[in-house]
Formats: sequence, C-alpha cells, structure tokens
Amino acid sequence: MTEFLKFTPLVQSLPATVPFVGPETQERAAGRPFRARIGANESGFGPAPSVKTAIGSGADEVWKYCDPENYELREALGTHLGISSDRIVVGEGIDGLLGLVVRQIVTEGTPVVTSLGAYPTFNYHVAGFGGRLVTVPYHNDKEDLDALLMTVIRENAPLVYLANPDNPMGTWHDNKDVAAFARTLPEGTMLVLDEAYGETAPASALPAIEALIDRPNILRMRTFSKGYGLAGLRCGYAFGSPGTITSFNKVRNHFGVNKMAQIAALAALKDQDYLTGVCSRIIASRKRIDAIARANRLATLPSATNFVAIDCGRDGEFATALLQELVKRGVFVRMPAVAPLNRCIRISVGPDDEMDIFEEELPQALAAVC
Amino acid sequence: MTEFLKFTPLVQSLPATVPFVGPETQERAAGRPFRARIGANESGFGPAPSVKTAIGSGADEVWKYCDPENYELREALGTHLGISSDRIVVGEGIDGLLGLVVRQIVTEGTPVVTSLGAYPTFNYHVAGFGGRLVTVPYHNDKEDLDALLMTVIRENAPLVYLANPDNPMGTWHDNKDVAAFARTLPEGTMLVLDEAYGETAPASALPAIEALIDRPNILRMRTFSKGYGLAGLRCGYAFGSPGTITSFNKVRNHFGVNKMAQIAALAALKDQDYLTGVCSRIIASRKRIDAIARANRLATLPSATNFVAIDCGRDGEFATALLQELVKRGVFVRMPAVAPLNRCIRISVGPDDEMDIFEEELPQALAAVC
Repeated sequence: MTEFLKFTPLVQSLPATVPFVGPETQERAAGRPFRARIGANESGFGPAPSVKTAIGSGADEVWKYCDPENYELREALGTHLGISSDRIVVGEGIDGLLGLVVRQIVTEGTPVVTSLGAYPTFNYHVAGFGGRLVTVPYHNDKEDLDALLMTVIRENAPLVYLANPDNPMGTWHDNKDVAAFARTLPEGTMLVLDEAYGETAPASALPAIEALIDRPNILRMRTFSKGYGLAGLRCGYAFGSPGTITSFNKVRNHFGVNKMAQIAALAALKDQDYLTGVCSRIIASRKRIDAIARANRLATLPSATNFVAIDCGRDGEFATALLQELVKRGVFVRMPAVAPLNRCIRISVGPDDEMDIFEEELPQALAAVC
Repeated sequence: MTEFLKFTPLVQSLPATVPFVGPETQERAAGRPFRARIGANESGFGPAPSVKTAIGSGADEVWKYCDPENYELREALGTHLGISSDRIVVGEGIDGLLGLVVRQIVTEGTPVVTSLGAYPTFNYHVAGFGGRLVTVPYHNDKEDLDALLMTVIRENAPLVYLANPDNPMGTWHDNKDVAAFARTLPEGTMLVLDEAYGETAPASALPAIEALIDRPNILRMRTFSKGYGLAGLRCGYAFGSPGTITSFNKVRNHFGVNKMAQIAALAALKDQDYLTGVCSRIIASRKRIDAIARANRLATLPSATNFVAIDCGRDGEFATALLQELVKRGVFVRMPAVAPLNRCIRISVGPDDEMDIFEEELPQALAAVC
C-alpha cells in the first residue's frame, strides 16, 4: 500500500493546493528577496509602536495557552462596536472564520453564491466541503448586488459572500445599498459580509452596526490584518446575532487564536490614534499609486482599500506580462485571476521607499511589454 | 425569525461548548489570579531566552502574512527528524491537525476508536464531523493497545487515536510495543499517534522515526507547546508518508500558522541545549511532585510527561473535592474526567515557587476534605 485509501470520497476528489503562492516562495525561486513587497495587501506601515511594545512584553506570556474564550478581546471589541460580546466570535483571521461558516452550512451539492473573481479562499472552503459554487459577474468592476440577489433566489442558496469594500478591485457600494441588499435576502440565506477593508473605507461604505445586527442571517467579518497591520498574527472577528455567533462554539478550534494575536489585537484596538494616522497614510499612498499610474498613461479604479487596481488597458495576457516584468524587477504585486478583472494589476499601498521603487520600475516594465 | 434555520442538521445537533474552561475564566469568576498555574500542562519554565529574543525581533515582521507553506520550519524539522520536508505538515497546534485529519476521514456514523478518558479535543472533532466514538477502557492506567487493536478490527474503524506518552495519566508504552501496535493495524485504519509529550519522555518510549515513516496509515504528531514552552503560539506538526501529508493541503487553513509561531518554533528548534536543560528541570519537578504527594501519604503514577497524576486513593467525588479545595486556595490544577482515572488529580510541573505553593496548600486542601 502506498496511499491511505479511507479518506472520504470528497477529500479524494479535492486537489492539493496552496490558494496563494507566498512571496517567500517566489523569493526562494528567484534566489533573492523582493525590493518592494506591495502585492498581498499587507500594511507596510506596520502596527502601532504601542502594539510592538505589547508584543515584546508578550514574549513572557506565550508559555501559557491562550484564553479559549477570547474574553478580553471580545469585551474590547464589544465596547468598540457598541454591542455585547456574545455577538462576537474571534477566529484565526477571516480565512479561519470563513471555513467555519462554510462548514456549518454547506454539504455536498449545496449551492453557494459569490462573485466571479472574488476572494478565492472563500471558494476554497466551499469546494472543501463539497459545495457547488455559483458565480455572478462583476458589473462595472463592482460586485453586482442585484444579480447576486437574483442568483441567491434562483438557486435557493443558503450562503452568499459579499466583500465591501471589494478585493481584488478595491471598489465599494454605498452603505444604504449594502444594507438594502442584506435586508432583502431570504431569511434562509446567510450573508457573509466581508469588511476586511472596513477601516480604510469611507464611512459611507459601511452600514451602521445597528442596521444589520439583529438579523440571524447576517455575519459581518473584520480583521486586524489590514488597517491594524497585523496580518501575520491571524486575528479576525465576526459579529451578528447571538444565536448565529454561538453556533461557532460547536465547531471552532477553541485554542486557535494564539496568545500573541490576543495581546496585539487588544493593544491595537486601544490605539485608535495610530489607526487614524495610518489611514491617512493609506489614502496618501493610494493617491501616489494613482499618480504613478497616470504618469504612465494608465488609469486606476477608485479604491476604498489598502490597494489600488491599475487598469492596464488591454487583456489579461498583457496584464500578466506586465506583472511578470515587475516581479522580475523585484516588485511583488498580484492581480485578479478572472476576466475582465484581470486586465488590472493590484498594487498595495506602502511606505514611500517602496512606492519609489514601484515608480522607478513601472515605466521599465511597461517598456518591456509594449 | 430569531435563529438561522439552514445550519446543517449535524451542526444543529451539536452542543455549543468550550472543551477546556480556561484558568482565565476561573480567575474572572473568583475575582483574583491563581497563585500557581500548574493545571494545563504548560511549561512554567517558559521558552528559551533565545526564543524570547526572536519573538521580540519578530514584532517587526508581523505586518507580513506568514509563509503559507511553512517552508523554513518544515525544512528545519526535516533536518531535525532526519526526513524530507514533504513528509511534514505544520498546523495550529496538534488540536488543529486533529481537526483536519478527522475531517478527512470521518463522515456521519464513521466509527472512530480511542481510549475512555483520553484527549477530549480529539473526541470533540470526531463529534463535530458526526463520527461515532467507540471507547476502550484504560488498563492499569495505561491505554490498552491490545483492546484498541481488537476494537479497531471489530468496528472496521478507519481512525484510531493513541497518545504516547498518555494524557491525562502520564503513563507510556515501550517503543517496541507502540511500533508493533502501529504496524499490526489494518491498512485501512489511520493511526494518530499523538506524541505531544515526546520531548519529555524517555527515549525508550518513542519508536524510531524510520520504524513507522513509510506507513501511509500512520501520522505522528508533535508540538512546540510542551517541552519547548510555546503553548500560546499554537504550533504543532505531523509527519508521515508524503501522500498522507499532501492530503492536508486539500483542507487546511493555509495561513493558519501565524508568523510569530513560525519565528519562535524555528528559534526553539535551534536551541536544543535549552530543551535539554528544561527536560532536566521537568524531571526534577516530577520528582518533587512525587515527594510532595508521598509526604501527604498519596501515591503518584509514573510519568513521561510534564505533569504527574496523583492518585488520591478514593473515588472521583473525593478527587473532585480535593481539586476544588486546591483551586479555592489559588492553585490551578485539573483532573481526568472519567472513572477510574478520575480518582487522580493532575499536577503540571513548574518552577520551584509554584511547587512551594502546591506543597503548602496540598495538606490544607486534604485536611478540608478528609
């Protein structure tokens, strides 16, 4: 025997995969580090100095298991959001929470609705539990709320995914439209409203907490990975009605949120001044990416996130070639995977020195492919 | 509508639970911190100073996503174990890996064999995927290899769990017996050999790596939580045949192992001198717990772990009362949940000051219940 034969038929049918190839893998292949790391929508501005201090002190605490109830962090989040902590679950990033919500709703053949080209890790989890993914094309580079709703109804789907602001395009819907979409969904359809980029969005993009909090079929998800600059520590949270939140306690890995994430997230939440400052830098960096693109006669899409999609003006093949030229020059960037979104490349904001490198290399990369 | 109605029937049938109530929860209820934290089999000796230094420097790295392939850590583990890195998967603690292996094998009604009173989190995962748990009593406070094998065959079970050394009793089997058990299992039965306490066990307890490495139906799991003192960072690993290991890439949360865990585990692995020193302190602390118990006319079980089971000499009710008296006196300890194991309380090793407190409080706790 060379293979174990009793894996479930579903697992046997799945491909072994790495949904995102890390920049580390590319660096190993190239034999040298990237000069600019502006591809994974991380925050090159980093977490607050106060958070780094807390992490340093945390070294004395990591021998202890983390609190499996994430009590202090949930209390602090409750205060921050103005809701009680029994409406909040903390997980190993939004990725971990997505896996848990899919597991709770999806079995083999369950229809699940998302946008064509939207967050791949959600799709990975749906496939992993045997769900049938039904995709809706973007409309004008935005997720198409009307078509998502119609598709949910047509498929009688118990689960739909919407990112607002959107990744990979950076676009967003007005909070009134999002709230109307959410409240119009059938009661038997769970909406995962991924607000990973909530902190970097204009206030008008986010429905008020109280607008959706009492719906058992709405889960809003946020993270410490983006605005707060803690992508590596894996800490996200979801909030909604107490019954829906409690259900996570049936299936989650109770010690999954590590102690350093708990310590750092708590410190990050306390330092809202730093977050405000970082958001200003993110907005400034978005403007700089736009200026660099326009100086090279390329258009950008409006962005409410910590990245900007540059429209390369031609097809996916051209954008891929341009991306490869940038990578070859030591600039780590990524791009959407599906047409017509893949006419764009996606540039994460970052400190000026990384933007300088991008500004220097983009014209050369363009010259190489034109 | 007050509840979401489309959770799967399995999820609707599960209880919301916290498998281990954290000491933090008890501290909140009591309104004061524990004086001695010797209940969760953590390492009060902490990680190496070199690891703490690495964690401090790591504060500058946590804005980056972790490497989803855990490349450097798997390479280092491969060198450490003398196997290639395609035989190793890293996960969010053994807990996380247990969930993933259960998910790959168990569907509703699948029989799964374990020992009655063994690790509850494994059972939690089995229940979470709808498996049918079949339990085998301990024999002389050890997991009963012959009975486990017979039960596997009788039930035609595709999954069996064995911890060696054992938690919660601390006992162990000789490596020859473990290897013989493992190699006699049917090819269609996956053995999870949980070696969380491998570093603190005598060499004679652990089968040689090469003795079992080529069996596709054997997964050995180890962790940085115990000997290495990094319970809070959530980093465990499994090793086995390449096909069985690759299968994890179909279902795992690829960014689940956080960057600080990667940094700290790598540093911990490099500092084997510290591990050697800690293991000496663990052995000394086991002896001290034994001496304290005997001074109070209580027997202890032999231990290959970082804890010692004290036989309180009567039934579970008595041991529970004693444990509650210790807790009331600020000493955090735990105990097995099932008879006859629950005649014992389980004391984790720790620094001398914590042992002093235990030594001081045990006679008083005994006096209160006798």
